[in-house]
Amino acid sequence: MIVCPSSCGGSVEFKNGAGLDLRDADIVVAETSTLPYAVRLLEPGKIRIFNKLKGGLFLAAVPAKNTGHVLQQVRDVYPAMSAARNILQTSLQNGNPVIHPTITLMNVALIERTRGDFDFYHEGVTPAVGRLIEAVDKERVAIGKKLGVEVIPDPELGVLQGYMKEATYDDGFITAPGLAGVRAQSSLDYRYFNEDVGYGLVFLQKLGEQIGVATPVMSAVIALVSLLMRRDYAAEARRSMETLGLSNKNAKNWRNCWLSNRLSLDLVVVLDLVMKESNCEGSIQY
Amino acid sequence: MIVCPSSCGGSVEFKNGAGLDLRDADIVVAETSTLPYAVRLLEPGKIRIFNKLKGGLFLAAVPAKNTGHVLQQVRDVYPAMSAARNILQTSLQNGNPVIHPTITLMNVALIERTRGDFDFYHEGVTPAVGRLIEAVDKERVAIGKKLGVEVIPDPELGVLQGYMKEATYDDGFITAPGLAGVRAQSSLDYRYFNEDVGYGLVFLQKLGEQIGVATPVMSAVIALVSLLMRRDYAAEARRSMETLGLSNKNAKNWRNCWLSNRLSLDLVVVLDLVMKESNCEGSIQY
Repeated sequence: MIVCPSSCGGSVEFKNGAGLDLRDADIVVAETSTLPYAVRLLEPGKIRIFNKLKGGLFLAAVPAKNTGHVLQQVRDVYPAMSAARNILQTSLQNGNPVIHPTITLMNVALIERTRGDFDFYHEGVTPAVGRLIEAVDKERVAIGKKLGVEVIPDPELGVLQGYMKEATYDDGFITAPGLAGVRAQSSLDYRYFNEDVGYGLVFLQKLGEQIGVATPVMSAVIALVSLLMRRDYAAEARRSMETLGLSNKNAKNWRNCWLSNRLSLDLVVVLDLVMKESNCEGSIQY
Repeated sequence: MIVCPSSCGGSVEFKNGAGLDLRDADIVVAETSTLPYAVRLLEPGKIRIFNKLKGGLFLAAVPAKNTGHVLQQVRDVYPAMSAARNILQTSLQNGNPVIHPTITLMNVALIERTRGDFDFYHEGVTPAVGRLIEAVDKERVAIGKKLGVEVIPDPELGVLQGYMKEATYDDGFITAPGLAGVRAQSSLDYRYFNEDVGYGLVFLQKLGEQIGVATPVMSAVIALVSLLMRRDYAAEARRSMETLGLSNKNAKNWRNCWLSNRLSLDLVVVLDLVMKESNCEGSIQY
């Protein structure tokens, strides 16, 4: 079972929902960092593929010891897929919460007035928009750094994936061949806010808070988008370490152990620590 | 001498700059809440007047006991001008910090891409933009309420002034006859951010903080605009109660006295309290 793409702990959500023990390695559950294709549904039964990813596509299993096994199973179809350290890396590497809300926010009036009659990336991104994307991206990279997982900045990933020719936050998007013709949404009431803020940015902001990484720009974006949509996305907290079961009463103990000594440990070790309500010693067996 | 328009303590700034005692009533200094005209320079020596205000235009002198005297002097030219309680009312009633930054922020990409080739109000305002304007306006009205001065919500003022036909935050602007043809700025590096955020919103946000009124939406707007413009407007604090000399080491004492007992007192009484470093007792002579 591969949750594709994960978008913030998707495989944990799946295992929780299916009643599977997160440490159970018999039923193989994994997740990818993003979709292997950039694709839009044109009509029932008809899709348009803008890009098949050439790289920058990561996979992690829960528990992570299964990652290599899963990659072997899909290697012939998706040779570009590579191993992530753990699902924190696949979750953080998903760029949607970084690019979708920021570009949408900087084009709110045009989207509403024209019902999205413009190219989302080629027309919706300008130098100032690029600065906003970059600021949110830097907060995401900082979260990854604190957690000991590498997060590739979004434009660099875009080049690896074959979307973009240039790894910059403005022209990189404006001139990206793989993003040409992607139209804007016809309404603000769309997944670019509802999912990528409601789940994505809120997840990242709360995770940053939990581990002590400041995310003032994400917070400002969440605040304004909530106001525009008349929804309190932060209060809804549809997806967070808490809803994933990773922020229980032992979170403080877990965090202290993890951040002070074991930043690079597999998430499953962390889960194990949390679930067993143990301290830092013992129980590291994955 | 009339500072026209004031925009956040302009007459205090003037008196300070000219070395005049704020309590000096001999040299008559006053300020208006906004300009008597909506006007744009077309070319040197040629202007276009969109609207001559029909009402909703306030004046206050420093000290306020001069207000009636000043109004008499200008009555024949500007019969629509009426007395404000004090300069806090004229400062807060200026709508520019409420409407300019919010509409600009929601049109960032379009302004940069087209160099402002659209109608700022008739095309730049949509229902979601209206919700953002409303949220900032409500924070401004709340600041006024805490200070004991009435602040008329922006669309209601727009109707009084003759700009708008309907007192709403979306259609009110979109259909306003007095705002027809006002084009957007050709660059983000313009007074709609540099003045109306750098001076206006920062002034309001800090004033709110000083008197205990929450302004989370203003703060989010300031944060994002600062990022877009690569300037820390909040840190620059070009205009604040502090730069006006109204937030010195006795501010706490002043605030306690004022907020608990004398919300509706003339600002000059407050100034007097601050400047004499006195406590609540005595010194009320205006």
